[in-house]
This record gives sequence, structure tokens and C-alpha cells, in this order.
Amino acid sequence: MKSRAAVLYGEGQEFKLEEVEVDAPKEGEVLVHLAATGLCHSDYHLVTGELGPLYFPMVGGHEGAGVVEKVGPGVTRFKPGDHVLLTFIPSCGYCRWCSMGLGFLCDRGANILLGPQLDGTFRMHTEGGEDAGQFCCISTFSEYTVVPEASIIPLAGDIDLTKVCIVGCGVPTGFGSAINSADVQPGETVVVFGIGGVGINAVQGAAVKGAAKVVAVDPVDFKLETAEELGATHTVNPNERDPVEAVIELTNGVGADKAIVTIDNVLPAHVGQAFKAIRKGGRAVVTGVANVKHQHIDVSPFELTMLRKQVVGALYGDSPVHADLPRYLEEYRAGKLKVDELITRTYSHDEINQAFQDMLDGKNIRGVIVYDWAK
Amino acid sequence: MKSRAAVLYGEGQEFKLEEVEVDAPKEGEVLVHLAATGLCHSDYHLVTGELGPLYFPMVGGHEGAGVVEKVGPGVTRFKPGDHVLLTFIPSCGYCRWCSMGLGFLCDRGANILLGPQLDGTFRMHTEGGEDAGQFCCISTFSEYTVVPEASIIPLAGDIDLTKVCIVGCGVPTGFGSAINSADVQPGETVVVFGIGGVGINAVQGAAVKGAAKVVAVDPVDFKLETAEELGATHTVNPNERDPVEAVIELTNGVGADKAIVTIDNVLPAHVGQAFKAIRKGGRAVVTGVANVKHQHIDVSPFELTMLRKQVVGALYGDSPVHADLPRYLEEYRAGKLKVDELITRTYSHDEINQAFQDMLDGKNIRGVIVYDWAK
Repeated sequence: MKSRAAVLYGEGQEFKLEEVEVDAPKEGEVLVHLAATGLCHSDYHLVTGELGPLYFPMVGGHEGAGVVEKVGPGVTRFKPGDHVLLTFIPSCGYCRWCSMGLGFLCDRGANILLGPQLDGTFRMHTEGGEDAGQFCCISTFSEYTVVPEASIIPLAGDIDLTKVCIVGCGVPTGFGSAINSADVQPGETVVVFGIGGVGINAVQGAAVKGAAKVVAVDPVDFKLETAEELGATHTVNPNERDPVEAVIELTNGVGADKAIVTIDNVLPAHVGQAFKAIRKGGRAVVTGVANVKHQHIDVSPFELTMLRKQVVGALYGDSPVHADLPRYLEEYRAGKLKVDELITRTYSHDEINQAFQDMLDGKNIRGVIVYDWAK
Repeated sequence: MKSRAAVLYGEGQEFKLEEVEVDAPKEGEVLVHLAATGLCHSDYHLVTGELGPLYFPMVGGHEGAGVVEKVGPGVTRFKPGDHVLLTFIPSCGYCRWCSMGLGFLCDRGANILLGPQLDGTFRMHTEGGEDAGQFCCISTFSEYTVVPEASIIPLAGDIDLTKVCIVGCGVPTGFGSAINSADVQPGETVVVFGIGGVGINAVQGAAVKGAAKVVAVDPVDFKLETAEELGATHTVNPNERDPVEAVIELTNGVGADKAIVTIDNVLPAHVGQAFKAIRKGGRAVVTGVANVKHQHIDVSPFELTMLRKQVVGALYGDSPVHADLPRYLEEYRAGKLKVDELITRTYSHDEINQAFQDMLDGKNIRGVIVYDWAK
């Protein structure tokens, strides 16, 4: 079938809107008609090449929600008409990692940057007849997409698909980084570096877990204001004040219990700031994606040991997707986790390149493309 | 009173044996007659200056066991004649960290490199009448020493003081790094970088916790042989083979579950090796002490996040000293934790500089000085 999709033909280019050919779902796959897709900085990494050399042409997009159009052979958990949320990492349920509760490390996840579907073949083809890769196996920048069953979370029918699309990436990556990876405890001080679609949810996670002080750090003032509305008790604009100094002062010289780095395109020095901002015994969580070219982080090995600090990566908020994404949706339904408020602007599919420009210009917490049929 | 002690007068010098003056214990302090002291590479950091600028003259030594000679005012937990083990970090029991079960982070521990006792005054004085600092507040290179009550663990009277002195530092730092910090699980693969007085205990800890594969890495073959005797299933001499490559091959391309870096004078590249050797979701524990001058570690921030790895410092094996040191002593008594076997050579007090030379030459797992009266 035909589907309008945003295709990237190479690094440094714009996304090109065109009619791609989408194959029928094969064994264990599902055809989804998307209602909306969020725009994450990780999509822009495709453009900059910061993730290393990738397959092109590639259909971008890795957070979306929609309706099941058709299921492939062997799929029993879903039927046409079901509302679903897509995850950017498939979780098969039976590999060692899924079995350990670490579904975000699923062996199938090793495929998400490669291009083809899990079986190594392509489901999308460009107007020119080339095989088109699917970013994270889900390509939410195409109105219709074929995805692995392992990449789907069922949604209750009454949840607004155009809002919860961002629960596919930004929400769990940030919220989980606070409640799982940082394991924030009541009364703690937590500093969040970077208030975008991920960081704002780390702020919410820290607040939900009862942190006494939540310090939001970002150079964009409107993002700091949003952070204050959603749980931050203090804000620091690094253009005005050194955030490490501010945190140390705020904690009477002790340092924060936890720091969470959600900055996109994380630099070695950003990790160093988080490391300096935490107290002895504290934990720095890094969930922003760095350029593959960096081979070090600015962490003193002497202090690592003598102050017994921890520097831990967090992927997808360390959320076992089939368990935690439904849990986060319950928090949303209960009004404790704000999602609607994170969507600064919506765009039509045609406006995708403008939407990325707005992201780069710091105009949005999260921008969302709503497909015409779902408006 | 007079006590023979090994005094260091400055960086790059040898320890000088002389009669120091030891004051009576003040409030909350105890005078201990030491039976033996272990020699740890951390003492040698005093000589090299790798811990940064320190107070001199300093009486070295930070692992020892002995008999209480006299107690100061307010000390009720101990009486003359009690056998005791000294810890290199005091743990007061009531600060935030002690109360959290993180006694190795005790606020009193911030004093251990400064020189004076916890109240800021000195208990030792050189032959020339200068105030002498006490390394880690305990100065086990002096036959008599005054120490904080917070630095003492009670010992059963039947335990050999000349053996368990090394349970004051090397044993818990290594054993705890495996059982606490790395949290080794049955069936896991653990790689230990560096087989000295710390690393050998990390090997033992991994084995006690049921690791399926324990890989010992060290350039000295006799240390690898000792590791094999005490639980290592595989050994790698890095002069013969790249240890990361060996671990990856041994785990069918997956990587070790945990890596523990016990190398003294840890370099940024050592942390990088451990990071490369672990699997996705794995944990690298760093407990070796690095030179303060290093301000980075060779860890790819991209892999930190995308492979959700963890790099954590471990101090004193993350052992809450008053709880865990007695526990380790029970393991020793039960024969599960070998201590006697770790002492390669014993020395008289006068041989201290030779003992350090042997350590630097890689001749010992652990060297121990036994004071004459205890022989």
C-alpha cells in the first residue's frame, strides 16, 4: 500500500515527504495507522550523523501512537481496530534481558539503528523503488507503518492518541530515569540537566517520588518556567550562573543526591558537571545521547573511588517496556504525570522540517505531528 | 610514651624509623598496642604524592590489629586487653551516612588524609618535636598508636592478630567490591583487573557469591596462580593477551556481567578496559585509587547510555564497617574467606622500606610487618 512518509536520503539533508510503498506485515508484525508522532532530538541525530554511519534512505520517527490496521501471521495479542502505542525498542519477552526485567536491553534492540525489520528484510520502499530503512523498526514519520509485535503496547480506547504518542520515548526516558535509574527517594535533592521532552519528565519523576528539591537546569527560560509548573523547586540558567556552584550552595556544600543528564548531544563536560554536582555516594544518571566520536567523560577517577560516586547510563528510563509504559499511562490517567502540557506545538506532516527547526531553536518542550485523519 | 614508628618527612623520601612521642588518648580515643600492620599501595601514595599535597611529617600505615592498652575519657565499648582491628575510615554511627548504612562515607572520614586526630590536634610528635600526622587517623606503622573509637572493630580473643590485620583494608576493599558494589550473582562472569591485596579478595568475593567464571587479570604470573587457588576460573596476563578481547571471547561476544578494577594507581585507560569488557547493562566497579591529577576516564558516553552500562566507585568495598568487618571475619573463621594465604611475606619493623620495594617489584600479594612482641 501507499503511505505518505518523511524520508531522509543522507546526512545533512532535509526530510523529504513522498509516497512510500509499505508492504503487508509478515509473521509477528503489525500494520499500524498512526494518529500522531512526536519529534525527538534523536531523530535529528540521523541528520547530523552523530549516531555513526547509518543506512539510507531511512524513514525517521520513533515515538507514535495509532490504530492497528492489519496483523501478520502469528500475531494474537492484537487485532484490527486496537489502539496502540509504539516503543522505540522492541522487547521480545523471552531473551535473557527481557526475562531479567531489562526489556530495554532486549537483544532485538540491537537492530533498531540498522534499517531493516527484525528478519533483515525491508517493509518500506521509496518512490524510486529503493529499500527504505525503518528507524527503530517503527518509522513513525510514515502515516502507515509495519512494526514488530514486540514494539507494541496496548492502549485503552479512551486515551487521546495524539497526546500519548510521546509516551513512546520522551516520557519513559525521562520519567524512568528519575524513578528507576536515579531511584529518587523522598526528601532528596535532584538536579536535572536539560529540560526538553526527556528532562521535563525527569523533573516530574523526581517530584512524584517526593524529592524535596528539584533543580532544573536549561539555557531557555520558557523551559525553566515549564519545569517550575511541573515540579521543579529551583531553576538555573547556565548562561547566568554556574549550575554546579548553584547546586552546591543550595545543598549547604554537600551536593545533590542525584543528577540526571538529559541534554541531547551530551558532551564529556556535561557528565563532568553532573559528577561535580552530586554528593559523596551520589549518583549521576546519563540518558541523553552522545556523539559516537567521544571516547571519554570528564570524571575524576580519584573522586569516583574516594567519594564513591556512581555514573550510570539509562536507556528508555530503564523501563521494562511492557510493564512500565502501562504503569506510566496509569500515572497519566491519574493526573500525576502530565503529558498534554508537554506538547508545545502540533504540526501537520508537511511541516516536519519546520518542526525540527523549532526544536533546534529551543521553541518546544515537545513538538508533535498529528496526521490529518486524526485531527 | 615513646613508640618506634616509621615516619615520612616528605614526598619521594624513604620511611624513617625513629622513636616518636605518643600522647595519652583524649576523649573518645583509644591507645592501641599493635601486633601487626599490612602494607598497602595506598601507603606508598604518600611517597609518590599521588593523593595530592598532604601534611608532613606523617606516620604511615592504615591497616592493623592489636590490643587495647588504654582508653580515653568517655570510651565505654573497649577496655584494656581487648583485641581490636583498626579501620582506615572512622565510622561515627550517627552522621547521615552512617545512619544510612553507608559508614564508609562517614563525615569523620573526610579527615583521614589531613594528619591530625578528629579534634584537629596531634597525638604523635617526632624525635625532633614536630607534630606528626597520623595517616587515616590510625598510623599503624607505629607500634603504639592513638586512634578514634570510631575506627575500632572488636575482635574475638582467639583470632590471630598478625593475620587479620589485613582485614582492616585489603580484604574488605576487595571482598566488599564483589559482594556489595558489584553485587555478583550466581552464574555471572566477573573480571577482576589487578591481583594484589585488594584484587585477590575481589576474586574470593566473586567466587563466594557463586560466579560461574572469575577472570583474573594481572601481569605477574605468581599472582595469577594465587588467584586460581582462591577462586579464579580463568587468568589473563595482559602482557600476553588483550584482556578485553579475552573476556569478550570467553563470553561468546557478550561481555562480562561485572568488572572490578583494583589496580593501584588506576589510569583512565584502566577504567576504559573494564567498561569495554562488560556486557550491555553491566557494571564496572572501580576501587583502585587514582592519581588526583587525572580528570577523565575512558568511557564512551554514547555507549554509557545506549548500552546502559554503569561505572561505580567503591570505597572500602562499600562495607558499613561496624557491620561488615565482623561479617567478613565470620567468613574467615568459617574458612570461606582465605586471609592467611594472602600474606606472602612478613617483615620486621626495620625492614619497612624493603617491604615497599618488594611490593613495587610485584613480589607480594600482601606484605605484613609483625611487631617484635607479637612474633
